[in-house]
Order: sequence, then structure tokens, then C-alpha cells
Amino acid sequence: MVSQDEPDFSNDPYSWNGLTGWKSYRTLRPFRGMYWDVRRRLPYYWSDWRDGLNYRTLAGCVRIFFINLLPALAFELDMMRNTDGYFGINEALLSSALAAFVFSLFSCQPLTVVGITGLISLFNYTIFAITAEQGIRDLYPQFLAWCSIWAAITHWIAAACNWCDYMRYITDFSSNSFGFYVGIIYMVKGFQEIASTYYAVDDGNPRAAYLGVVIALCYFFSVWALESIGGTILFTPNIRKLLSDFAYPIATIFWTGFSHIPGHIKQADLPRVPHTRAFYPSVPRPGGVWLVDFWNLPVKWIFVTLPIGILITLLFYYDHNISSITAQAKQFPLKKPAGFHWDFFLLGITCFVGGVVGIPLPNGLVPQAPVHTDSVTEYVEVHARSREQWLDDGGERDESSGEGVQWIQHNNKKVEATKVNEQRVSHFLMCLAFVGLMAGPLLDVLHTMPRALFAGVFWIVGFTGLSAMNITQNWIYIFTEKRFVDPSDLRTGMKKWRIAYYTMFQFLGVAISVGLSFTRAAIGFPVVMIALIPLRWVILPRIFTEHELLILDAPTAEAEVVLASIGGRPTLPEVRLAEERRRQRGESGETAGSTHSGSEEAKAEGMRSREGFRDEEEREVEREKAEESKRRGVKADLITGHD
Amino acid sequence: MVSQDEPDFSNDPYSWNGLTGWKSYRTLRPFRGMYWDVRRRLPYYWSDWRDGLNYRTLAGCVRIFFINLLPALAFELDMMRNTDGYFGINEALLSSALAAFVFSLFSCQPLTVVGITGLISLFNYTIFAITAEQGIRDLYPQFLAWCSIWAAITHWIAAACNWCDYMRYITDFSSNSFGFYVGIIYMVKGFQEIASTYYAVDDGNPRAAYLGVVIALCYFFSVWALESIGGTILFTPNIRKLLSDFAYPIATIFWTGFSHIPGHIKQADLPRVPHTRAFYPSVPRPGGVWLVDFWNLPVKWIFVTLPIGILITLLFYYDHNISSITAQAKQFPLKKPAGFHWDFFLLGITCFVGGVVGIPLPNGLVPQAPVHTDSVTEYVEVHARSREQWLDDGGERDESSGEGVQWIQHNNKKVEATKVNEQRVSHFLMCLAFVGLMAGPLLDVLHTMPRALFAGVFWIVGFTGLSAMNITQNWIYIFTEKRFVDPSDLRTGMKKWRIAYYTMFQFLGVAISVGLSFTRAAIGFPVVMIALIPLRWVILPRIFTEHELLILDAPTAEAEVVLASIGGRPTLPEVRLAEERRRQRGESGETAGSTHSGSEEAKAEGMRSREGFRDEEEREVEREKAEESKRRGVKADLITGHD
Repeated sequence: MVSQDEPDFSNDPYSWNGLTGWKSYRTLRPFRGMYWDVRRRLPYYWSDWRDGLNYRTLAGCVRIFFINLLPALAFELDMMRNTDGYFGINEALLSSALAAFVFSLFSCQPLTVVGITGLISLFNYTIFAITAEQGIRDLYPQFLAWCSIWAAITHWIAAACNWCDYMRYITDFSSNSFGFYVGIIYMVKGFQEIASTYYAVDDGNPRAAYLGVVIALCYFFSVWALESIGGTILFTPNIRKLLSDFAYPIATIFWTGFSHIPGHIKQADLPRVPHTRAFYPSVPRPGGVWLVDFWNLPVKWIFVTLPIGILITLLFYYDHNISSITAQAKQFPLKKPAGFHWDFFLLGITCFVGGVVGIPLPNGLVPQAPVHTDSVTEYVEVHARSREQWLDDGGERDESSGEGVQWIQHNNKKVEATKVNEQRVSHFLMCLAFVGLMAGPLLDVLHTMPRALFAGVFWIVGFTGLSAMNITQNWIYIFTEKRFVDPSDLRTGMKKWRIAYYTMFQFLGVAISVGLSFTRAAIGFPVVMIALIPLRWVILPRIFTEHELLILDAPTAEAEVVLASIGGRPTLPEVRLAEERRRQRGESGETAGSTHSGSEEAKAEGMRSREGFRDEEEREVEREKAEESKRRGVKADLITGHD
Repeated sequence: MVSQDEPDFSNDPYSWNGLTGWKSYRTLRPFRGMYWDVRRRLPYYWSDWRDGLNYRTLAGCVRIFFINLLPALAFELDMMRNTDGYFGINEALLSSALAAFVFSLFSCQPLTVVGITGLISLFNYTIFAITAEQGIRDLYPQFLAWCSIWAAITHWIAAACNWCDYMRYITDFSSNSFGFYVGIIYMVKGFQEIASTYYAVDDGNPRAAYLGVVIALCYFFSVWALESIGGTILFTPNIRKLLSDFAYPIATIFWTGFSHIPGHIKQADLPRVPHTRAFYPSVPRPGGVWLVDFWNLPVKWIFVTLPIGILITLLFYYDHNISSITAQAKQFPLKKPAGFHWDFFLLGITCFVGGVVGIPLPNGLVPQAPVHTDSVTEYVEVHARSREQWLDDGGERDESSGEGVQWIQHNNKKVEATKVNEQRVSHFLMCLAFVGLMAGPLLDVLHTMPRALFAGVFWIVGFTGLSAMNITQNWIYIFTEKRFVDPSDLRTGMKKWRIAYYTMFQFLGVAISVGLSFTRAAIGFPVVMIALIPLRWVILPRIFTEHELLILDAPTAEAEVVLASIGGRPTLPEVRLAEERRRQRGESGETAGSTHSGSEEAKAEGMRSREGFRDEEEREVEREKAEESKRRGVKADLITGHD
């Protein structure tokens, strides 16, 4: 990853390796991570602006703006329904604008887009329900403000104490489980949005509801089809890219227009995004224009909000950092350093400000952050030729002689990521766009959108997310007929039930979280999600062999340039365990094999020798390649020597 | 196609080659074709029953039954709307049952499924509109009966005079244009079906209409997804095949069930297939139970019906024979002989019977007939391995030495048609099923189906048809980026505008026919369609070179076993023209090249030499292979020698 003219981040001064005594305790050396984050990134600040002045950044900006705006509005409508209208469109726009402003200008990693997620919406209306149950419905604004203040304080503590380091333990196991959970929540929200239309006007409006289903379905398939064009060989590369970049704007404009066709469609009286007064809160605040009079909350409730604030911090700790990590995941060739501690501190600031002005708290967007990086990445479609030779079942015809071999010629398309435009421009333009939307005329434009369209947004964003997750990919593998599986797929060396068993642990975490989300305990789900990390690090290496985990799982971010900010690359526990075992065997001789603690280890060793891996590094390289090809859907480049 | 143990049909006694004098005139030797049709097929009659006793035939029977029944009902609903309810469900079922009875028992080619098409529905309601305009609305039944009687008589004349021979001139140019036209009509009917729901109850029911759109869309995607599974490598071959065979029944049962979910959906009061009295005509007939009192039509109107009858015969001549040809097209490895003349005579009988009992006249089903053959064809999914070598752009690395070549292994799926179950059982079972449906209890089952579901049927049948046609395939080719085109695609040697130019002629025919279909002149569209045959045969060879036509077009049926019934394989005009030219050049020496009649010929010769075709046969073989691979979507087997 590190090229000649780039600084080498593998020996970054921010490290805890080899330290002893009090110096090795992260909590005892506050601000160390934040200091190095800034020092590492600051030299790139001006280049962050210069590097954004190109077509790709502008095109990517339009794409990510729509993928950020549409779900934000959708979640806002959801919150509006569930908080008696306390949260409205203006709150969503202000929150998104605030987040984009702070993070585009001051963050260490401006690629991580920050905004309103479904999870904060879940938190906000669960808290609303709790206050309603406690009979302090009127104190909801103040109650929520205090939750946010506590969250801000705990954010600052976590950032200062270098606790973001633990994010390096995030592997695909937990990040994909979380992505899967979020995908499910999106899908469900889509159905809820449609269902709500039945009751949108007083006596219900089933005609509009069904027309809404039609619009949502068509929107889903339009975006899906337009985005799929990017992967085909139709038209020219530029047209393909244009259609797939602008899939959301095209579909949004078309189906909004469709919903205004005079006659039957217009008469259906579709519920639309509500009108609001520009720049003012949806519900007038007593203490001033936006400020919430949080000082009016009785002290006993202030203490009640503390644990809730901590839960918000837990949520954001996981959610924000995962979105940051996935935005910097291994498939993107990044050159500029990350800064997890500093950015988490900034998030504390947006929590505080968001809390006292009564808007939904923004944080890293999980399915959208990697889309942002993707949309500012320059891809090149390489034309390559291949020559193919067909063999009968198991036939090894003409392998050595080359005589009389028959060939088929192919033209192939290979997609290569050449460069990521690591810059602040797209994020900052988004901020300007949000501020612009808060003005009267553009609010009127928003009002023309049918609410049902947001169901389509939920479905397509959720569906795209779900299908990319390793849970889905593994289940597709399990259901694939074995004889047709790509032989370069490393999973072919494993039993299918082992893969299913591995996925089962992810399912468990997802199922519990989804279950919780529909109860008052919803605000507790981050605990479940975070528990997946120790499960992966402590339990799984004892159930699965090193070989299995190396194939099925990997750290989500692997570049030194990213890992430098969180204390460098960790040693995977299964590798350490296997190392120990090998060392023990070396000490006790060959016969010790049978004295080890059970059949799992024996199996692991069997697999190792069958696969014929020669050493750690080679295996690592092979897995990386397979992972990458899996992710991009490109022909595996895993090549086997011939001759 | 002709294997050792099968009779050789290439020297069939039914031929007009080499005949002179009155013996060479088809019309002067009536019944010759019919006689040989029967004589050729009769020896296979009992095997036609034996060969149907297997799982594939039964599974195929379920599939084709639904693909036959659902559009038939849909067209019937369409006719019901447009003929003030004269035609109803019972008429559709009786017509389908009659056709299946006659053709399963007595036809020479029982693979050609016969039933109600959209075109006869178009005829029937256009005639209704004409009678209404002429003020003889009450005479509609008699008027239509006489149209049918004239059609029957002209059918018999055409069959006796061996005129079906001209069907051997049908190439993909005209058969695919016709298929495209039918596909468009299907799509339009889908939208009309939905639109009609707005006015299904007196004051309109937009709620049901939108719910109907939802059901139709979901039905479309369900069938599409289920049928697509057959092409994947998911599950096992049997499960894949089962899901794609039963896509229509599964989707029909599911979405019918869905439309009955209590609550909002049930309350939407979807229009459903109407109730009728079992075994009775929809409108009571005066003269008896089913018989139409056709003898009560004034003589002047009898003469008016003659040209309409002839138009029906023209329609059926084209429609029925094309469906028969596509049901026996080149991709199916058929062993048993066809019988076009005899079957057309039978069709005259069903026209007569259908006319006097007042049911829609059945004929060969255009998108469905090849589906029938396909669904009783045994396919084997062969597992083959391939070894692939990637080269850089234009690179020719390691071609000769074979040293240090790097390989990628693949597992591939190849689909091969091993055998067609050529039998009468599936067709006869369909007859029994239609008769069964006419009974009271099953009519009640039909009544549970929402009408909107038929819009989904129209869309999926139309869409599947449209996407298979060469017009679509050629346009996809035109829009494909050149560098990624499969090099074994023979079209790569041609200019794209020539392909577009060729397609333009097809579009023209389709556009005129579609245009006509929405006017009173609708019944004249068969003339346009049939005019495509001489266009292809006389005009196109003068516009396109032999090389171009050989690649872009081919006779739809090519097996001797099929062509024997229609006078054997014809010489393509472009081949004859090119032969003549070559002979002339041979006579007048090399310099004559420039004296020929224009630049087209010169270009043709240029192409010939550039492509380096060595002789007619080799070219023929290559084209056939390319055609086949195009049709099956299988990797082209066109292999180039290596050594």
C-alpha cells in the first residue's frame, strides 16, 4: 500500500507496542491519540482542498448527497410520526448541515460522511416513548438535550483516553453483522413508511397507499437497473458511469414527476413531505429560536439521562467508527492517514451542539460512508483478452505438450481502482447544499416529493447493503451447486456446515438486535453489537481453526495508513493460538500432535497440510486476493503456476 | 440432425424439384402434401403416446398448461370487455379444449400447441366494432360464424393446394418480426387490463386499480425471478428445473392467495374473473345450447364476410405455421417428421366448428408453441472445466512456447439439449384439464383470481418474447462497447450501421402492424406481416450482401425432418445471387470485377476475402454454430485452431 514517495506509516510513533509500566495504559496518557491524529493529517490539509477540484469529486458529490439526503428525510419522517411531530424536516437538514460543516472542515478523515442514521431515529423515538410512559412528555426536549450532553461528555472522555484503538479489532465478522442489521432495519422502515400511508389522512387513504407501493416498487427497480448498468458493457464507460452515479437523482426526479401526472394519479392525493417554515424549528421553542431550555430539567431526571447518554456513546462509538473504517476499507487504495480519536472528539462536539439546539444527533452513516469513498474513487475499466481452453470433466488434456489445444478467445472487462480522491470538497459542498435546502424555495421543492418514494429509498439502500454483506455471500455460496463453484474460491476447501455454523453466530447477533429494536429495550442494542467483537476475538478462535477464520474473516481495514491512528495492526488471536501450538509441537517433537487438546486442532493441522500453505505471508496474500475479487465481482486473479 | 437409426428425410418423395409441366404446379396436384404428411407421420403414432410417459412430459405439461391457460383467459377478458360480454370464460375454455382435443389426437405435429391468441381476440372485437357501426349489432354472432365458415373453406383450399410449402421461406427476419409484434401487443394488453380496472365498477375503483398494479408488478417479477433460477448454479439441477418449470403456477397461486388477505387488501374489492354457469355459453343462444343460427344472416352480409374470412385465413396461415415452425426450430433436436398441410387442414375444421358454435377460433400460439417444445425437451447440465489465460490488450504472450503460462481454472456449466419428448400426451392432458376447468367447482377456483394478475401474465409473456427476438439482440449488440464484444460473434466483422439498417426493415413491418392494430383496419395487419416474406426474399438480397444476410438471418427451421413436409430446403436468394456473380466473373475473367452492378457487390466480395471463408459449407457450419450459441446463451463453441 505504501508507495515510494508516500510516508511510511508502518512505524508510526503512535504505538503501544513494547511499552511497559504506566506508559502502556491508554487511559493514563490522555490526548496522545488525538495529538498524533492531527499531527499526522495536518500536512495534507491544503491538498485535501486541491485534490477535490476534478470531475470525479463533483459527480461523486451529487451521488452521495442524494444517498445522504433521502434516507435522512425518510428517517426524519419516521421520527416525526413517532414523536408527535417534535422532529421535522428542518431539524434533519440542520443536523446534516452541521455535521457536514464540522466534519468537512475539521475532521481528520473527511471521507466519512456524517448525518442522520436510522439508529438515532430509533433512539429518539424510543426515548420519546419512555418519557411519555413516565408522564414527562412535556420535558422530552430537555430530557433529550441532557442525554446528548452526557453523550458529548463521554465522547470526549473516550476520545481523550485513546479508546478508539479498540476499533482495530473490528473484523468483517462484526462490521458485516452490523451492516446486515442496519440493512434489515432499512427494509422494515420501508414497509412501515408504506403502511403509515394508510392512516396518513384522518379516514385513511388506501388508494394513495397502493399508488405509493407502486411508486416505491418502481423507484426500487429504477435505481437498481440504473446502478446495474455500470457493471455491463453497454454504451461507453462514461455513459455507464454517469447513469450509475446519477441513479438516485434520475429516479427521484422521474418518480416525483410521475406522482404529479394529472388525472387519476394526481387525484390519489399522495401524502407528501410536509411544508415547514424555513429556518425555524418544527415546534416553536420557548427559550429562543433553536436553543432548548435544558436547564429546566429537574435534577433527578438529569441523573436518569446519564445511562442513556452512555448508551448513545456506545452506539456512536461502534456506528461512527465502523462507518469510518468501512469508508477506508481494504478495497480502497488510500494514501492519506486516518484520525479516529480526533474525529470522535469532534463527534462529541456535534452531540453537544445538536443536543442543546434539539436536532437529531448526527454520526457516521453506515451503508453510505463506503459509498462516498467509492463514488470519489477513480476506476479504470481495463480491456483484457483471455484465451480459454475447455476440458471435459476432470480432463487434463494437453496440459504439458500444448499440441492441438483448442482455444476460445474472450474479451474481458476488468475494473481497477486507480486512485481515491481523498479530499474535503465533496463533503463541504454537501454542507452548502443542505444549507441551501433549508431556504424557502427549495423546501417547496422537497414538498413535491411523495412520501412513498422514501419507502423505495429504504428498500434500495437496505437491499444493496444486505446483498454486499458476507452473511449473504456465504449463504449464496452454501446454496451453490458444488461442481460449478469457482475453484479459486478458498471456501472450497471447507465443509459447508462450518460456513453455516460461522454465519450462525452473526445471525444470532443480528437477530437479537433486530428483536430488541422493536421493544423499549431498543436503546440497549449497541451492547449486543459491541459484544460481537469479544465474541470474535475470544470465543471464535476456539471454535474455528486458524485456516477457517483466515478465509471467512479478516480485519475490515488493513492499510497501515488507516491502522496507524488506532495503534497499528493487531495480531489475530487465531494466528497467535496456532503459533503457540506450532511452537509447542516444535518443542515436544512430532508425536505431540495427538496429545493436543482435541479434534479441532488436529483437523486444523490436517487442513493446513492439505492446502499446502507454505508460510504465513503467502497465505495472507492469497486470502487478500480472493477477498478482493469476491468484493469487486471481478474474475479472481488468483493464478496457479503452470508448467 | 439425421442419426443412423432414423429414416433420412433429405430425399423425401414429397418434392417439387426437377418437375416440369403441369406436374410442377402445386395447385394442380391437390392433397399431395396432405397425403405425404400423413404417410410420413403415421408410423410414429403409437410411439407418440409411449414417448409421453415420463416425468419431463408431465412437468412440461403443467408448465405449458399455465402458459396456455392464463393468456387465453386474459384475452377472453379483453374480448368480453370489447364485445359487450358476448365472449366469456366458457367460450375460452371450450375453444382451448376443442383445439387441444383435435390437435393432440389427429395432428401430424402435436408439439404445436393450439389455443386462443391475442390476434383472434383483436379480430373478434374489431369485427364487433364493424357490425356495431353498420347497425347490425344483433347479427354479430351470425356474422362472425360466416367469417369463420369462409375461413374454414379457404383453409381447406390452401391445405389441399399445398400452399403451406411457402412457409419454408420463413426466416428469422419475418418470424422474429412477428414475434416482436406479438410481444408488443401483449405488453399493451397488460396496460389495458390494468387501465380497465379503473372502470370495473360503476363509479371506478382506483384503489383496486393501484392494488392491481402492485399485484401485476409483483407477479411479473416473481415469474421472472423463478424462471431465472434455472440459469443459475444455485441448489441442485432438479430443484432449479422444478422452480423454473413451475414458475407460473407458483406465482399464480401465491398472488391469488395474496389478493385474498383479509383487511385492507380484501377490502380493496379487486375485480376478479367473472362467475359463469358451467358448460353454457355466456350469452344464451336462441337455436340450441351452443349452435349459432348462422343460417339467419341475410345474403348480402354473407358476401361481406368472405374477405374477412380470407383475412382470418391469411392470419392463421402465417400465425399458425410460424408457431409450428418455431416449435420445431433449429435449436430442438427433433427426430419425427412435421406435417404442415395436414395440420392446416385440421385447423380449417376447428375454424368451422368454432365458428358455428360461436367460440373464438383457436390457432397456433406464437410465444407459447416453442415453450411447449422447450418444456418437454430433456436438457443436461454438463460440468466442464476450462483453463483460462489472461493476456494484456492485444498481447500474444506465450502463444507458441507454452512456457511460464499462467492459468485460471474455472468450473463451467454447459446446457445441452439431449432429446425432445415428441409425443401427444402433454397436449392431450391439456385437453382434459380444459374440460375439467369447464366444470362448476373449478370455475369457482378461476373466479378467485384477480383480473390484475393477467396484466402480469401479459407483461411476463410479452417481455420474455420480446427479449428473445433478434431485433432486441441486435440492438443490444449495437449498444455494446466494441472492445468487450465476444470475438466469436460473427457480427464483429460488420459495420454497426448495417445491422441497424437491417433491423430497420423489421421495425418498419412491426410499426405498421402495431399502428394498424389500434384502428378498424386491424384485421388487415396479416397482409403487412406476410409482405415481409417477399421483402426478405426479393428486396433484401439486393441491399445486403450474402455475407451479411448469412450472419444476420437464417431459416427459422432447418432440420430436414421438418422441411420435408414443405418441399425441402430452399436455396437462399442471396446465395443464388452470389453464385451467379461468381459464375459470371469466372466466365469474364478477373478484370470483370469492376463491371459488376455496383459497389455493394464489390463490398461483398471484399468481405468474403477478408473473412477468408473457404467454401459454402464451412461458412454455413460457422454461422449455425454462432446462431445456436446466440440462442442458448451458452459460451460459443466456435473454436480456432491453435498450435
